[in-house]
Parts: sequence; C-alpha cells; structure tokens
Amino acid sequence: MNDDHERFRPASTRVSPRFAGVPTFLRLPQHDDPADVDVLICGAPFDGGTTYRPGARFGPRGVRTASALTRGFHPDTRVDVFSALRCADGGDVGCIPMDLDRSLAAIEERALSIAQAQACPIFVGGDHTISLAPLRALSKVFGPLGLVHFDAHSDTFGPAWDVDVHHGTVFRHALEEGLLRARDVVQIGIRGPFTSPDDLDYARSAGFRIIGMDEIREDIAAVERHIEALSECGPFYVSFDMDAVDPVFAPGTGTPVPGGLNSYEALRLVRACRHVKIVGGDAVEISPDHDPSGNTTLLAATLIAELLAAIGYRRGEPDTTC
Amino acid sequence: MNDDHERFRPASTRVSPRFAGVPTFLRLPQHDDPADVDVLICGAPFDGGTTYRPGARFGPRGVRTASALTRGFHPDTRVDVFSALRCADGGDVGCIPMDLDRSLAAIEERALSIAQAQACPIFVGGDHTISLAPLRALSKVFGPLGLVHFDAHSDTFGPAWDVDVHHGTVFRHALEEGLLRARDVVQIGIRGPFTSPDDLDYARSAGFRIIGMDEIREDIAAVERHIEALSECGPFYVSFDMDAVDPVFAPGTGTPVPGGLNSYEALRLVRACRHVKIVGGDAVEISPDHDPSGNTTLLAATLIAELLAAIGYRRGEPDTTC
Amino acid sequence: MNDDHERFRPASTRVSPRFAGVPTFLRLPQHDDPADVDVLICGAPFDGGTTYRPGARFGPRGVRTASALTRGFHPDTRVDVFSALRCADGGDVGCIPMDLDRSLAAIEERALSIAQAQACPIFVGGDHTISLAPLRALSKVFGPLGLVHFDAHSDTFGPAWDVDVHHGTVFRHALEEGLLRARDVVQIGIRGPFTSPDDLDYARSAGFRIIGMDEIREDIAAVERHIEALSECGPFYVSFDMDAVDPVFAPGTGTPVPGGLNSYEALRLVRACRHVKIVGGDAVEISPDHDPSGNTTLLAATLIAELLAAIGYRRGEPDTTC
Amino acid sequence: MNDDHERFRPASTRVSPRFAGVPTFLRLPQHDDPADVDVLICGAPFDGGTTYRPGARFGPRGVRTASALTRGFHPDTRVDVFSALRCADGGDVGCIPMDLDRSLAAIEERALSIAQAQACPIFVGGDHTISLAPLRALSKVFGPLGLVHFDAHSDTFGPAWDVDVHHGTVFRHALEEGLLRARDVVQIGIRGPFTSPDDLDYARSAGFRIIGMDEIREDIAAVERHIEALSECGPFYVSFDMDAVDPVFAPGTGTPVPGGLNSYEALRLVRACRHVKIVGGDAVEISPDHDPSGNTTLLAATLIAELLAAIGYRRGEPDTTC
Amino acid sequence: MNDDHERFRPASTRVSPRFAGVPTFLRLPQHDDPADVDVLICGAPFDGGTTYRPGARFGPRGVRTASALTRGFHPDTRVDVFSALRCADGGDVGCIPMDLDRSLAAIEERALSIAQAQACPIFVGGDHTISLAPLRALSKVFGPLGLVHFDAHSDTFGPAWDVDVHHGTVFRHALEEGLLRARDVVQIGIRGPFTSPDDLDYARSAGFRIIGMDEIREDIAAVERHIEALSECGPFYVSFDMDAVDPVFAPGTGTPVPGGLNSYEALRLVRACRHVKIVGGDAVEISPDHDPSGNTTLLAATLIAELLAAIGYRRGEPDTTC
Amino acid sequence: MNDDHERFRPASTRVSPRFAGVPTFLRLPQHDDPADVDVLICGAPFDGGTTYRPGARFGPRGVRTASALTRGFHPDTRVDVFSALRCADGGDVGCIPMDLDRSLAAIEERALSIAQAQACPIFVGGDHTISLAPLRALSKVFGPLGLVHFDAHSDTFGPAWDVDVHHGTVFRHALEEGLLRARDVVQIGIRGPFTSPDDLDYARSAGFRIIGMDEIREDIAAVERHIEALSECGPFYVSFDMDAVDPVFAPGTGTPVPGGLNSYEALRLVRACRHVKIVGGDAVEISPDHDPSGNTTLLAATLIAELLAAIGYRRGEPDTTC
Repeated sequence: MNDDHERFRPASTRVSPRFAGVPTFLRLPQHDDPADVDVLICGAPFDGGTTYRPGARFGPRGVRTASALTRGFHPDTRVDVFSALRCADGGDVGCIPMDLDRSLAAIEERALSIAQAQACPIFVGGDHTISLAPLRALSKVFGPLGLVHFDAHSDTFGPAWDVDVHHGTVFRHALEEGLLRARDVVQIGIRGPFTSPDDLDYARSAGFRIIGMDEIREDIAAVERHIEALSECGPFYVSFDMDAVDPVFAPGTGTPVPGGLNSYEALRLVRACRHVKIVGGDAVEISPDHDPSGNTTLLAATLIAELLAAIGYRRGEPDTTC
Repeated sequence: MNDDHERFRPASTRVSPRFAGVPTFLRLPQHDDPADVDVLICGAPFDGGTTYRPGARFGPRGVRTASALTRGFHPDTRVDVFSALRCADGGDVGCIPMDLDRSLAAIEERALSIAQAQACPIFVGGDHTISLAPLRALSKVFGPLGLVHFDAHSDTFGPAWDVDVHHGTVFRHALEEGLLRARDVVQIGIRGPFTSPDDLDYARSAGFRIIGMDEIREDIAAVERHIEALSECGPFYVSFDMDAVDPVFAPGTGTPVPGGLNSYEALRLVRACRHVKIVGGDAVEISPDHDPSGNTTLLAATLIAELLAAIGYRRGEPDTTC
Repeated sequence: MNDDHERFRPASTRVSPRFAGVPTFLRLPQHDDPADVDVLICGAPFDGGTTYRPGARFGPRGVRTASALTRGFHPDTRVDVFSALRCADGGDVGCIPMDLDRSLAAIEERALSIAQAQACPIFVGGDHTISLAPLRALSKVFGPLGLVHFDAHSDTFGPAWDVDVHHGTVFRHALEEGLLRARDVVQIGIRGPFTSPDDLDYARSAGFRIIGMDEIREDIAAVERHIEALSECGPFYVSFDMDAVDPVFAPGTGTPVPGGLNSYEALRLVRACRHVKIVGGDAVEISPDHDPSGNTTLLAATLIAELLAAIGYRRGEPDTTC
Repeated sequence: MNDDHERFRPASTRVSPRFAGVPTFLRLPQHDDPADVDVLICGAPFDGGTTYRPGARFGPRGVRTASALTRGFHPDTRVDVFSALRCADGGDVGCIPMDLDRSLAAIEERALSIAQAQACPIFVGGDHTISLAPLRALSKVFGPLGLVHFDAHSDTFGPAWDVDVHHGTVFRHALEEGLLRARDVVQIGIRGPFTSPDDLDYARSAGFRIIGMDEIREDIAAVERHIEALSECGPFYVSFDMDAVDPVFAPGTGTPVPGGLNSYEALRLVRACRHVKIVGGDAVEISPDHDPSGNTTLLAATLIAELLAAIGYRRGEPDTTC
Repeated sequence: MNDDHERFRPASTRVSPRFAGVPTFLRLPQHDDPADVDVLICGAPFDGGTTYRPGARFGPRGVRTASALTRGFHPDTRVDVFSALRCADGGDVGCIPMDLDRSLAAIEERALSIAQAQACPIFVGGDHTISLAPLRALSKVFGPLGLVHFDAHSDTFGPAWDVDVHHGTVFRHALEEGLLRARDVVQIGIRGPFTSPDDLDYARSAGFRIIGMDEIREDIAAVERHIEALSECGPFYVSFDMDAVDPVFAPGTGTPVPGGLNSYEALRLVRACRHVKIVGGDAVEISPDHDPSGNTTLLAATLIAELLAAIGYRRGEPDTTC
Repeated sequence: MNDDHERFRPASTRVSPRFAGVPTFLRLPQHDDPADVDVLICGAPFDGGTTYRPGARFGPRGVRTASALTRGFHPDTRVDVFSALRCADGGDVGCIPMDLDRSLAAIEERALSIAQAQACPIFVGGDHTISLAPLRALSKVFGPLGLVHFDAHSDTFGPAWDVDVHHGTVFRHALEEGLLRARDVVQIGIRGPFTSPDDLDYARSAGFRIIGMDEIREDIAAVERHIEALSECGPFYVSFDMDAVDPVFAPGTGTPVPGGLNSYEALRLVRACRHVKIVGGDAVEISPDHDPSGNTTLLAATLIAELLAAIGYRRGEPDTTC
C-alpha cells in the first residue's frame, strides 16, 4: 500500500475514537480534488423534487454521522476497500431547495469533473431527482449507461401537477435523454399497489427488467446471477433509493412502501454488483428527521461501504466490458 | 366504469396532493349510506376490552392519516380495486370507552345495516373485542361464518379477573354463540410462549386450524394453498390483529409478541384470501400512540388495501360457495 | 342561537367522542361556501419556501388531528366562540411543493373569495411564505392592513441564493407591494442572534414596532396595552409563526430559535388581539413530523381557538376603526 | 434516628447505584404493613375512567423507574424527609381496567387500612377517578377533608355518554358524597377553554377557590399565602393531576391543556402545602407511554418527594387544626 | 408440583395484572438465596467496557419492565418453564461504572455462589465485558466450558487505545485464561465489514466455529443440528449479545451492525440450545435508552424465557456429558 | 475586518446552505493552530466520569450538527462575534472512555497549548469531569481563576463508591488543587433535593456564592448585577452544565433535575458574563442520544454563541482586572 492509500482511508481509531471528531463520510479525510483519489463521495442535499414527505436534504449530514461505525474489510468477498481504493469525502454540492435546475446543474458539473479525473463519484442524496445529474455527466464520459436500480418505485411515472421533473420521473427522463442502455437496466424491489395498471408499462415496454419481492424471496441467488450476467455489458451506474428497503428497516425516507427488502437482502444484492463495472452510484431518499433510531442512515452508510467494496472488487481486473 | 365508480374512489392527486385535505380512509369520500357502495370502511374506536396496553381507540384516526399513501392497482393479481368496488369512508361508530355492551351493540347495528344493504363492512379497530359485533351481525345475514384470523393469540382464552368478554376471548364467544363454522376457521401467526399448556386446547379441540411461524417460514406457498382450499366453503370474515405481525414491523399494538410475521408475509397471506368469499373484515389492535414511526398504521392501511383487492378479485365471479 | 350556529360548531361529544371520526379543524363541519359562515379555516399545505427544515406541508393535517381537544368557551374573556361565530373547515387549498407562484395564486384566490363573502379566512400553513397570499387578497378588499406578527424572525430579510420570495422575506414583499400599514405593524417575539447587524434595519426603518423577549418578560401587560392601543386603526391581519414560541414549547417547526415565548405568553398575547379588528389570520411553520409529543400542533390548535375568540369578541361591536 | 428510620429509607447508593436494582418508589424498601411506617406509597394502576387518551395504568411503573434520581433533603425548608418519616413502597392495588367499581373498592380498602394504621397513604395513579377512593376512606377516619387540587380541569363536570363516574367528575361526586369541606377546597392551575360557560359554575357555586394561571403568574407568593392560610382548617388531601402542568413539562398525560404551570411553579406550590395537615395525597394522570423523554415521570417523582417533605415538615409540630 | 414451584414462579395475573407492581424479571419473586431455586436471574449493570455507545447499565432495569408480558409454556417444545424450574429475581450485582476490576469481581463472586448452590446463574447485562465474570466462576466449578455465542462480533479483538479488557475482547481473554473448550465454541450471527482481514483470524485459528448470516439464511435447520451435535460435550455457557440481532429488531444496543438475525431466527436458535447442558448464560448489550419502541428489551426478555425453557428441557434427563 | 476575520468565521450561506456540508462547530473552519485564532472550540468526548446516565461522549458531535442554525450578531449587546473574534473548530481531543487520567491529561495539554498561544479555549463536553483539565491548564497561565458555574449541582460532593474523581466532585478537586479563587466562584441554578444536609456545606463553607431558582425567579436583574460586580476580579472560567437548565428545556443530559432555568434565563445569564474577563469556558453534560427533539444541542450551540459574544464584548477593552 502506498502513501496515498494511507492518506485516503478512514481516520485510525487509535488517533480518534469512532464517536469523536468532525463527522465525514466513513470517517474519511475531506478532500476536494478528484485527481488524487479513486472514489469521491459527495453530498447532494436537494429535496425539492419530493412529492410527499420532504427531508432528504439532511441525508448527507445524517449519513456522515451514522457512518462512524462503518469498516472496510468485507469478509465474504475478501475485499479490503481502503487498500483497494483511495477514498475521500468531497463535501456537499451547493443545492438550492427551490431551484431544481441550478441544483441539478451543480451536481452534474461536480460529477463530470470527478469522472474526467478518472475517479468514481458517489452521491449521497437528496431525493431521487438528483440521480439525473450524474447520469447526464457520466454518459458524456462513458456513453449510455447500464443501471442497477434499487427502489420500491420504477420512477418512470408521469408529471405530477404538471411538474415533469420530480423524484418519480427521473429514469423516464434519463431514458428519453439517451443516458441509459435500456436493456441493461434492472430495477430491484419494485412493488405495488400502484395508482393505475399503466404505472409499470413505461418501464416494461422500455425493456427494463423489473424484479419484485416475490422473485427475490423465492430465490435471491437467482437475482444475484442475473446481476452477475450483466457484467459483460459496459459501464453501470448503481442507484439505491432507500425505499427499496422495507420502511421498518429504513423508516427515514419520503414515500415508504411496506413489504420491501430487509437489510440482509439489500446488502447482499449490492454486493452482487461487484461483477459489473461501476462508474458511479448514489444512495438517495434518506431523511434523517424521519429516522429517530438511526437505522436508516446506518444502513445507508453500510450500503455505501458495500458499494465501495463492489467497486474495489473489480478494480485491477482487465477491463472486458463490451 | 360508471359514474358511481368515479364518485366512490380516492380523491385524485391532481386535485388534492396526498398530504392535503381532511384525512379519510384511503382518501375515499365520506359517505353514510351503504346502499350506494360495495364496501364501507368504518372506524370502531373502542379499547375498553384491552388487558395490557390501551390506545387502540385512536386506531381509526391513525389509519386514516397513514392511508394517504395507499393506492388501488395491485400488480400481482391485476385487481384495480376502485374500478372493481365502490368504496367510502363511513365514519366512526360512536363507542364509549367504559361501556362494552353499548359499544358492541352500536357496532353490530352498523354492521347489520351495511350487510343488509348488500355492502361489505370493514372495521378499523379498536381492540379485538370489537370483532364480536360484526360477527354477530353478519351471521344474522349469512349464517355461521368461516374465519381467516391473523393473530399472535388464538383469542379463545378464559376470563381475566372474572371479566369474560375482553380482547382475548372474542373467538371463544363467537364459537359459543354459533357465529362460526369451526372447521372453516384458520388462525395464522399464533405463537407462544403461553401462560399454560391449556391455552391452545380450546381452539384446537374446537377444530380451528392453527398455523404457527415455523409452518409459515417453512413453506408460505403451502399456507396460501390452505387458504385457497377454503374457497368452496361459504362466506368468510377476515380479521387481522396487528400483533400477528412482529412488533418490529407493527410496534403500535397492545400485546406485542416477538417472532411474528414480517410485512411481506402479512400482505401475501391477506392476498391469498382473494380466493374465499369475504363478507366482512377488520384490522384491529392498532395503537398509533405506540407507533412513532408510523409503520404500524401504514402497514394496516396497506393491509386494508390488500383486503379490498381480495374482495374485488372475487366480485363478479359466479358464487359457488357450498 | 339560530340554526346556523347549531350547524357550524364542533360535533357534539355526545354524538362523537373527541377521539373518533374524520379529523377536521376543531371538529368543525366541512363546508366549502364561505357565504354560510363567519370564519372559514383552510389549510395551505405549502413548504416550498423553506430555507432550512421542510415539513410544514403536513401542518394542516397535524393541526386537524390535534385540535380534537380544543373547546370554545373562553373563561377569561367570556367569549363563547361557536355561539358568536359560525365556523367551518374549508378544506385545503391545492398547493404544489415545487411551484411557489401557482400555490400562492391558489391561496390568494381562496382568501379573496372568502373575504368577498364577508367571512374571515384563517389559514393553517404551510411555511410563512403562504402569508403573502391572504395579505394580497385581503388588501384588495380592505386596503392596506395592520399586522400583529408573532415570530422569532422579522421575515424582512434579503434573498437567499438569489431566490427572492421565501419564508424569510414575506413581510418585506408585503410592504413593498403596499399591502401593509407599516406604522400598524407589530412584531412580537423577535430575537437573535442574527447573521448581521443589518437584519432588523429594514423592519425598524420601515416603522415596524419590534417587541423582543426582554420587553415581554419585563412587563407583558404593557405589551397587551400596546396591542390594545392599535384598536382604532383599521383592519388587521394576525400572523402566528410557531417559532415565535420557544422550540421547547413548539419543536415542530422549521427554523427553531431558543429563548422564545412560552405557551402561556403566546396564548395571552393572541388573546390581546381581541381589541383590534381582525379580518384574517394564520398559524404557520407547523411541522408535525418534528413534533413527536404533539405539543406543537396542540398549541397551534389552541392558538387558533384563541384567535377565533379574539375575532368573536369584537363581532357585534360597532365598527369604529379609523 | 432509630433503627426504623434506617430501615424505611431509600437504598444507600453505596450498596446499590441509582441505576441498579428492582425499581421501587424513590428506591424505598417494599413493605406491606402500614403499621410500621409513617407514609406508604402505593400504585393505583387504573385508567378505565379516561375519556380521551388512556395509559395511566402504567403510571406507577413509570414513576418507580423515574424516581431513582430522587433525593430526600430539601434545602429550602431544611426538611430531611427520610429522617422525619419512615416511608415504604406498598406495592400496587389490584385494579381491573374494565371494572371501575371493584377497582375503586380495592383502593378504598387499602387507603382505609393505611389510615387506620395511622400512616399516610399516597397513591400514584392511574387516572383521576382513583382519587375518589382515598377520599372515601380518609373521610371515614377524619371526617370531611380539605383539598388542595392541582389540575387544568375542576373535575366537577357532568356525565359523559351517560357515564357518571369518570375522571372528569370525581370532585363533584366527592362533594355530593360529603367527603369534602367545600370552603377548604382550592383548585390550582385551572384553565380553559371549556366546553361551555357552565363548566366552572358547579365548582364556584360549591365554594371552591379556583386559582388560574393569570393569578399564579401575577403573584405566586400570594398563592402560597393562600395555601398557608388554610393551615388552621383541619386535615387535607393533596391531589396532583399532572395536567395542571403545561403539556410541555408533562406530556405524559391524558388530556393535555397548553398554558399551564411550569415545573418550578408546581414544585413551589406543593412545597407551600407543608403548612396544612396532610392526611393523604396522590399524583395522577401520568401516562409513561406518552412521555418518551421521561420528563413527566421524573417531575411526578420529584413532586412526590416534595409532598413527602411537606408532610414531614408538619410532623412533630403540635396539632392545632380547627 | 411442590410448594417451592408455586413460590418461585411469576406472580399470578389474578392477583396482579401484568402492568402492575414492582417490576422484576419475568414478574418472578425477588429472592437472594440460590440454594432455594434452580435458576437465579441477576442484573449486571456495568457498561464501563463500552467502546462506542454506552447505556447498557440500564439493561437490567429495562428488561425487568419489558418482561411483564413474558409467559412460561413453550408450545413447540412442550416445556412448561416454571413447573420445571424454580426461578427468582436475584437483584443486581453492585457494579461501579468506572471500575472494571471491582465490577467483574463482584459479578464473579455472585456467579460462583450461585453455581456452588447448584443453581444456574443468568445475567442480564451490562456490556459484553461482564460475561468474563461468570465464565471465570463457572469454570472453577465445571472446568472449561463450551460456548454458544450469539453476536455480530467475535469479541476476540485486540486492545483499544491500549485498553486490553473491553467489550470486544472478552472471549479472547476467556480463551487465554483457559475458561473455554475452544472446539466447543460456536459463534452465531458474526458479520462484517471488519476493520481488517485479521479480525476473525484469532477466533478461527483458535478453533471457534463461526456461523454467518449467509449460512443461517441458507439453512437454519442445519444450524440447529450443529448446535444439537454439541450436546455430548460437557457443560455450556450461552451468551447472547443483542447485536447478533439486526439493529432494526434490536435498536437498543451499543454497536449495531445491519444485516443480522431477525427475532424469529434468534428465538429459534436459542431454542436449539435445549440439547446442550447449560450451566449459565447471559443477555448483554441491551441499552433501553436507545430503544424507544421497547422492542429490544421485549425481545431480550423473550430470549431469556426461551433460554429458561432450554434449561428446563434438559433438567431431569440423565447427565451424559462427555 | 482583516483577512483573518474573513477566514475564521462561519461558512457563508451563499456558498453552503446551513443544512449542507461537513458539520463543524457553528459552521466554522476546521483549524488546529491556536496561534491563528482568538477562540478555538474543541470537543472533549469523555463520559467516563458519569455516575448515572452516560452518553455525553456524543456531545461534541451533537453540538456540531445542531449549531448549523447559529448566527453571530447579537442585537442586545451589539456584539458581532465573528468580526470581533477569529474562531475555529479545533477538532476533538482524543479521549478514552475507560481511562480518566489519560483523557484529562490530553484535554489539559490541549487547553494549555491554546492558552499559551493567547487564544481562548472553549470545550464542548463530555461530562463535567472534563472541566478539571482546562482549569488545571489555565491556572498555570493565569493563576487561580474565578468561576461562573451554571449547574443544578455544586459538584463539590464526596467520592462515589470510593471513586474520588467523577462528574460530581470536580469543583471540590479544583479548589483543593488551588485552581480557583473561592470568593470569585458563583454557582447558578443549584437546586435540591439533595442526599443530605451536608451536600452544599462544602461549597458554602469554601465561600462559593450559590444562587438558586427562587433568587433567579425573584429578580434576574439582580443576578446579572452580581455577575457584573465580579468584573474587577481577574480572569474567569465559565462552565455551563446543561442540567442547570430544566430537563424540559434540555432533556439530553445525564442527571436531570426538574425545576431549573428556562432557555431565556440561561441565555440572559451567560450574556451577563460579558462583564468579566473570560479566559476559557465549556458546555458539558450534553447527551444527544437523550435529546430526540434536538432542543438540548440547539440550546447548547446557542449558549456557546452567547459565550463567544460575551468574550467578544470585552476584547479590545483595556484590561483592568485586579
């Protein structure tokens, strides 16, 4: 391990107990320049696209605090994240609650600068609207992206109150803007009831693979294999909406839907993403004010650690993406 | 869809966002006359039969608020509830906390008037004692009923402190009053420890089918088939005590028992009831003051939507009950 | 008392216990037509103008629930609200979280129709931005208005992130639009620290009377007399931002400031408004998701009851406003 | 101090840290026989008389836990409670949630046996209905009693839903049964709004002295003097309904009313009761499930310590009651 | 059943409702002398060994309160605990938060006296450091012990900040002190991520059997069989760290790790311990202040009831341990 | 204002909204070198001296988060903190929960280095034990110190369980070590009940001035004048134990005592300290895990802003201390 790997890893608990110090993502150093690191984790504290319960603007702050307990060696995959990847907390993008366009533009600019520095951006939201920004940025660098999308909703719905860009329409816009390889999109955790029979039609007719709870509970290993099978297909973005998880496991979110993933399944399926080439990702719809137990932010932090391990697993392998 | 179906469905989110307006069950119109609808959902805010932790008198109010997020199209069964059924919020029955007899009488009268108008009554409790009232009413119309009963307890226990009618004795009374077809009673989620070996004897010797957690976790599809097999057996009542669910998934209840159903299992097994002829139902033991996360009331609202879908699935089919 | 007064008062607890039924403001009947009533209470569930902690869109829903305990006879002033005033719950104005202009326009339209029907509109917010709408409407009917404004902040600040209309600028806009009689504006509960020495300059130079905590704690009766002295000065609007109250008494708000009013002082000073001619009012910045104890919504409901009593106290008196 | 005083005092913190051990009232020994002590503190876990929010059946349990922090030397009055009085935890009276009559009878029997043993009973409720029982018992021993009554409500209201004995009618019944010396009744903290102008009439016309919040905030020393002036008037009962206190200071109660006493005022006014001859008392309407901060039960425990100090202050003085 | 079994069982609910009375473990009688009982449950309120979130000193108090709902007949194994075993609440060992050595010594002394009286000690922690004390005591009586250890962590880690005995090193010390039969140690629920690849090496190289979540979710019956297979191997200690359970099921703990056991699995695997000869056990890392729902303490109480049933199942059988 | 004042002030809200970014004390820059600033705020996350409810190790983290809303211009005193003082977040001192001596030594070393660089150290605790460390350090630089001490307890008590240094003995040790000018010590908010009559004797006989609640409520201006009268007396340390405040205003603390200061009084009396020469200070006994509303940490942050303003008020004045 070279000096940079010593520099861009969590503070040693010998120097600073886990409960001490200014809270950063995973107790990583704060650093602005993506050129020095492999992964830069940034906050995107915007919740102006929320249609029901707002609060995700506090997501980055909540995840920073909860991530004090997160560690880096993953016994199942033998990935030692911070030996494999130089990581840092890149701070928050300046978002304006009542200005969607300026907020998305700022996030996109940050994502682009990270990708152009050959680092991998991970955003902590914020509501799901923010995912549109890194997809725009990364597709400029990598072309259309595959997507592993964890969510209770397909987020391909129509306008609400004549507002067309909100947290329930983001992947419809991404597809329409040409940012996605539709046949390499998998949506995991989707469940009803829905407002109408049409709600999933857009997603299905676009070619998205929708994996609901019955399929996951029937055979989770088969779902893992489905993700693994995507590995030959080019760069992917991983987007984790906390409401993919059952609201009992993640109450701190804006539009909870009972009957979702438990924490074990969520962690296991993110782990399965290690087989694909991940060029960016996010964890969104995290509302700490609706999470008095801290379980949501703790799970989000652990999912981010799992995502880092998935990225680290692949690094160093010869790139054979199609 | 005719005009009535337009009238008796949830308020359009185009007119009123989900977070806005006077909260009614599933954002349905308020309506008193059962003759105009297929299902009338009424509150039964009585908790005077509670032996441990009271608070279920606030159940109807809590479920009304939480049900703002509930929708009507069920992707698994393709049932579109509000196209299949005209539904309304029938308000609350006037219950008196310290007068069990008058409270049960009022609920029974309301249930009878609904059934006589050929609508299906669904009650939101209240403690489990309230189930005795619709069973009395509906058996007057339909004769003895089958029962799909979700609960941690069989509710066939003996008197407490010489009080014979309370929330733990309701199905013993129902059987003794001739309201049930004992061999068509299935109790799901029952689990110990119990006070004595005798606790389940009454239920078992009466012929009730008791399905515990080991059986559900071993093969949930077999449990579904068991419910489906009841379909030829006459009218059924579905009673859902929230403590069937693990207290982690439904903390807002009066006598929590660890080790119960998760939300996915609860929803799936209520869905399985679509094969039987449902003439009434309830969701009881919902105590919002013990539910700061709102998970209990949200799950209760979602279970009610699932119960509506089960009712809607069967409507229109030829009635072939034995 | 005539029939209308029987009709437009809270549901009798003999018919419906306080914990039962669909929750409306103060358990009043739901009614749309302002021509039939003296006061129409409407929700304005908009929080898109919030700069820190959102959630006030749930204010109307929370106040409806908490107001179940509110009563109508005020022993100190001998006002019997519902004998003096026909009151109803007018429902919520349709607000769109991410469209300030359309939301304010809808609220203004509702306020104008109520005032034109010679009823008094009371809005339950929503963030403080919503106050701009009734001020616009009412000044069309009554000309520039006096203002009794309870708040920790003067809300005459500058743009935030180049956004000029938000919850901290509303009374600067109101003044600039000519909606206020500046010398008849009193701001109660204002306290620091502020961002800069300039923060209160606009308000003071405009002629607003600012009453801070030292003045209130020194002699609250003098503050009452100050309000009473406004009574000869034309129509007034009363705007109550919950953060006027100490966050311990009203935690459910968006920008809490320690060191504020207690509940007794808040109630007493709203009571003092009975001497002025009130043509409209609001209670804003109520965020139930930050109020697990329910103290904020209960206090807000009680303040609204107090405001109704203040309105009722004056009704019937000869109008001698200057 | 004799051996008994060593025996009937809180466990030494040298033996058992405050956070350790089976929780008893004020960490006192458990003891059944009132003949051995001066004060016996008993739980009365009955909330079947509650008209709004139940839960006070858990009051004794909650106060036991919270009272771990309570101490015995009162610096203001120089009373050292446990040197002055032998105290014990007498356990709970067996109450039945749905049987008011049997519950009151059991409490009355316990109170009578304590008083007959020349000890002073203090009950921890339970809802306010339970106060009727010790008043019945003590008046058998002492004749009609004076009453210092802390409450937001006068509890002299009429029947609810044709139920005549509930937590809002207890002092009307006490007066009608001849248990009170009406001119020696003072009610502190009473505040509106009320349902009707008649609500306080019964109390006032009976001769009760009602002291509202304006009077207390104007001159609390005058209120103290009023209580002290009662000292020549025979034996008194002190009843503390937690809703006398503002719901911000005591959220864990059944019918909260904003604008009440703060904790300092409550403690100071109970302290003022040291001048009267106290023969029994209670703290009621304590609902721990509505008190997540523990502030209500901690305050209740501290009020009980204050009440003990008031009893201890008088003991040993020559009895000069009229 | 002889008189002693009548004496050493939970208070009858006919005498004392579950919500009433001084809270003891499982509503058992308080009793000091282990010679009179088969099992003595004692609190060990020490959390001075905690490296992250303290609070487990309140564990015994919390479990006492929550255990009011616990019962004794286990329908799956047909064990009727309180007929099989005379049980009592032995009070708390006096622990000193800032003195590990004296606290452990006191616990060890208590454990030794219980074991020497041929009773089985069960401790309610307290942080995991306290387990070292009964292991020291019991190995003096029984020789090295087998161990069924439920935990997210193997607790065989190295010193923290040069402190060698803390809640993450207890089983390394136990092994080094010769208290354990290493090949009869099974650790259930262990999961990452860890700080380094070395974290599990000590445990594995010592011969401990580590069973992670994948193995449990794959085939829980196989895990049961693994525990059963230990039955011929001499006396065992069962240690249940609440963080074995997912933090959603047991939020009230000090170092939560997402992705753990659910309550059903935890109960089922403790039940499986009935096949081994249990000579002592504990439930540790229970922090009620982080458990507002009460789910953690309720589950802990239920696990203790399950552990009692496991002990009771084996009693009376001929002892065939190797 | 020079460049340094631009550099060492809170982040501009134009660059970073208050809810965004890595949370530091008052959104100040992180900076290690005290030579560059006037005030360095450091965390002292140690709670190993707690005798009842631990958790104050999370105090620094909680205050950092809550301080996002804090501002710098104080309208009452016209102090503009960040123009008067260059301030920074100095990070946390490395504390070890189970090693009091090493923790105090580390804090003392940090305090000494700050004072020697002629900056003023402010510590955010941590339990009250930590105050001993800066008193030791500052007395080396300034000689014995005066003390303005806000607390419910005098913290001059005796050993607990033979442990002599804990959070209730710190000012006895300070006096015995010669760190204090006893006649310049004022203790504000002290209140009972106490364990024995002796509890305040040490403090009083040492010459400390004890100001209880009656005195504050009687005439707070007189208390202000008392503090002001200390101004000629040499350097002072200001120590604010959050339990000086009523537990309703500051529930997040370890040993709450009802009947304390409200937030207005606390802020006003810290403001009064501007007349004395402050060379260091702290805010301690802040336990965020017991503060779900966030009121405690918000008040603590506001008190720190008030303390900064008090320091800034005096800076620049000629030093006339005796």
